[in-house]
Amino acid sequence: MVREGFGKLISLSTAKELAVSGAPQLGTERVGLDDALGRVLAGPIAAPIDVPHFAKAAMDGFAVHAQDTFGASNESPVTLNLIGHVTPGRIFEKELQAGQCIEIATGAPQPAGTDATVMVENTETEGEKVLIYKPLAPGDNVIKIASDLAAGSRIFPKGRQLAPRHLGVLAAAGIREVEVIRKARIALISTGEELLEPGAPLAPNKIYNINSTTLRHSLRAFGCAVKDFGVVKDEGEDVKHAVSKALQDSDMVILSGGSSLGRGDFVPEIISEFGTLLFHGIAVKPGKPTALGTAGGKLIFGLPGYPTSALSNYYILIEPVLEKMTGCKAVRNCVTASMGRKVASTVGRYEFLAVKLDGGPPWRATPVMRGSSAITTLANADGFVEIEENIEVVEKGAVVTVRLF
Amino acid sequence: MVREGFGKLISLSTAKELAVSGAPQLGTERVGLDDALGRVLAGPIAAPIDVPHFAKAAMDGFAVHAQDTFGASNESPVTLNLIGHVTPGRIFEKELQAGQCIEIATGAPQPAGTDATVMVENTETEGEKVLIYKPLAPGDNVIKIASDLAAGSRIFPKGRQLAPRHLGVLAAAGIREVEVIRKARIALISTGEELLEPGAPLAPNKIYNINSTTLRHSLRAFGCAVKDFGVVKDEGEDVKHAVSKALQDSDMVILSGGSSLGRGDFVPEIISEFGTLLFHGIAVKPGKPTALGTAGGKLIFGLPGYPTSALSNYYILIEPVLEKMTGCKAVRNCVTASMGRKVASTVGRYEFLAVKLDGGPPWRATPVMRGSSAITTLANADGFVEIEENIEVVEKGAVVTVRLF
Repeated sequence: MVREGFGKLISLSTAKELAVSGAPQLGTERVGLDDALGRVLAGPIAAPIDVPHFAKAAMDGFAVHAQDTFGASNESPVTLNLIGHVTPGRIFEKELQAGQCIEIATGAPQPAGTDATVMVENTETEGEKVLIYKPLAPGDNVIKIASDLAAGSRIFPKGRQLAPRHLGVLAAAGIREVEVIRKARIALISTGEELLEPGAPLAPNKIYNINSTTLRHSLRAFGCAVKDFGVVKDEGEDVKHAVSKALQDSDMVILSGGSSLGRGDFVPEIISEFGTLLFHGIAVKPGKPTALGTAGGKLIFGLPGYPTSALSNYYILIEPVLEKMTGCKAVRNCVTASMGRKVASTVGRYEFLAVKLDGGPPWRATPVMRGSSAITTLANADGFVEIEENIEVVEKGAVVTVRLF
Repeated sequence: MVREGFGKLISLSTAKELAVSGAPQLGTERVGLDDALGRVLAGPIAAPIDVPHFAKAAMDGFAVHAQDTFGASNESPVTLNLIGHVTPGRIFEKELQAGQCIEIATGAPQPAGTDATVMVENTETEGEKVLIYKPLAPGDNVIKIASDLAAGSRIFPKGRQLAPRHLGVLAAAGIREVEVIRKARIALISTGEELLEPGAPLAPNKIYNINSTTLRHSLRAFGCAVKDFGVVKDEGEDVKHAVSKALQDSDMVILSGGSSLGRGDFVPEIISEFGTLLFHGIAVKPGKPTALGTAGGKLIFGLPGYPTSALSNYYILIEPVLEKMTGCKAVRNCVTASMGRKVASTVGRYEFLAVKLDGGPPWRATPVMRGSSAITTLANADGFVEIEENIEVVEKGAVVTVRLF
């Protein structure tokens, strides 16, 4: 039975709203710093210690009692007695007395009795005597206690996604573990009797499964834990069984294929059996035959089988959901470009236009769409232009924003 | 012994040139598609098969012999005999005769004797008869053999870094393994008697090691295999031993700490003992006390111990080397911003200015540099502005390019 049309298509913005608002909240877990790259803090972090927790020299030179140097000048240097040296990690045990100084290396603790460090450049050493040619104020060239972080102060707010430089701050504060949002567990199910896994011997009526590969790697790159069910035959019962299992041990289920209106397109029906079908059919190109439902507080996406459509829907529909669930930001940067040729679009339908960039900056964006069945469309593109529903034509030379893959 | 100054500093561009031209060439390895995300192809890839390798329906409808529909119109439809249906993955075994048609689902193989597919919308079904209201040309709504990829044609050039959409193309062609540049193996050595690993009990004269964490994660995020030697005490022999081991089983050695001119700053000397010291001291702020050498065709970096300096040198000096070695591009996107306050810089010295972005777009960039000893400097920044050597002042409101972390 071929059904004849989707009825009223839902707009992309409404579809996105429904999807994002249905995203489940994830729990948290404790991970070591070594596993925390890219993870999102479950709560604010306070510094357990002062950083640094002792005063130290900001440069190589001589640690002094600043008061001893008052009045020093090029014409009449102050002479101090050199009583030793101190390097980072060591402590000079004696307290310095008036008239004494000590050689100090960058990062070494300021010895007791000193409150400033004079740069080598402003001194001259003569045996056990050091001539100081410049007066110092207390604190000069000293890194003060807690100048980087004060104990108890907030280092990071809840929700901070941890980059290498953030992990460095946690390390500085001696923190070894952090509580983070746990990884989103996403189940992938490819439907379609025609699908073979890459590497299997080719049969005349079969094609290799593409969506498992593109979606799995996209989800992984986002930081998700992917459970890939591989190809499940387009028999209703097999798919139902897979969805049931997938709902049990994942936070979201993504099916590809079987989401249109033809024979064997029973994904929307299956979604309805497990829970509530939120929509079927979006006013987007490509990617119209897309379904979304919820079951037990979890989202079930039914993406089209066409690889370009499945992947473009990942970008425009699933990534926003993942951002909401995980607190991670998708790395999706933009450049401004001028459109290389006139593009006609359909009013009332959002268009995901894959483009290639040349010559920039300033960049020229040339559409490369070869049909949603062609996976090479996206492989040869650098990014995509979003043509909003109310736009009929993008003129050649128009300035557009290209979202990079 | 405190030495007094670096002598002539090398410019950043010269330093980068020396570093990049000294980057070793990496070998290749074979990896499965599942491990190929982000890897770089060692050679061009050709399609082993046509994709698709059979003609198939581009939409749901009826497969026909186009000639049978010539002359069809809304007023006088052509009537064809419906002899069955075919879905993806199945083959309709009989060859269609003149006057016959078959129901076909998107992606199903076009049966023998058919050369076009008519959309459901342009038909009406009456029992075993299908009325066709529109004439078709041969090939209409048929996805042709090899229309996505032709067997033998080049899919990707050598050097392509594989994103999910590229892996999708390889999957489509049935490719299961690819030859890629092997991962760069980078050895990390932190020197400094004052350093403790995060989590160790704090001692009064000690600080936690930050550079291991920031550099290790930066290198990993780039795709390198990191061998972290942790903290090696600032005793010449210990560091020499570590460097010797590191040179054996890695492609590049990065030391942090011990790269300046004071007591215990023997990293430049050690580099000289193993090979050739290319430079010591760069005209950059922060990060001046930086050394680079080569030994046995491998680079040895001596980065400053200050965490901001070590990390800024990673961005401006080491990332370009990694790009050259691995063929990977660092994800380092840029935005345009106006400078939030006047910034004075020193002529003759490149400045790495960490900035925070607000209010954008259009963005305002505010410098957050708090001294190179403070790790929080970079943690609170969104990116950096590069102030070239010949610039003395960046005025408030000046338009600058911010390279995002």
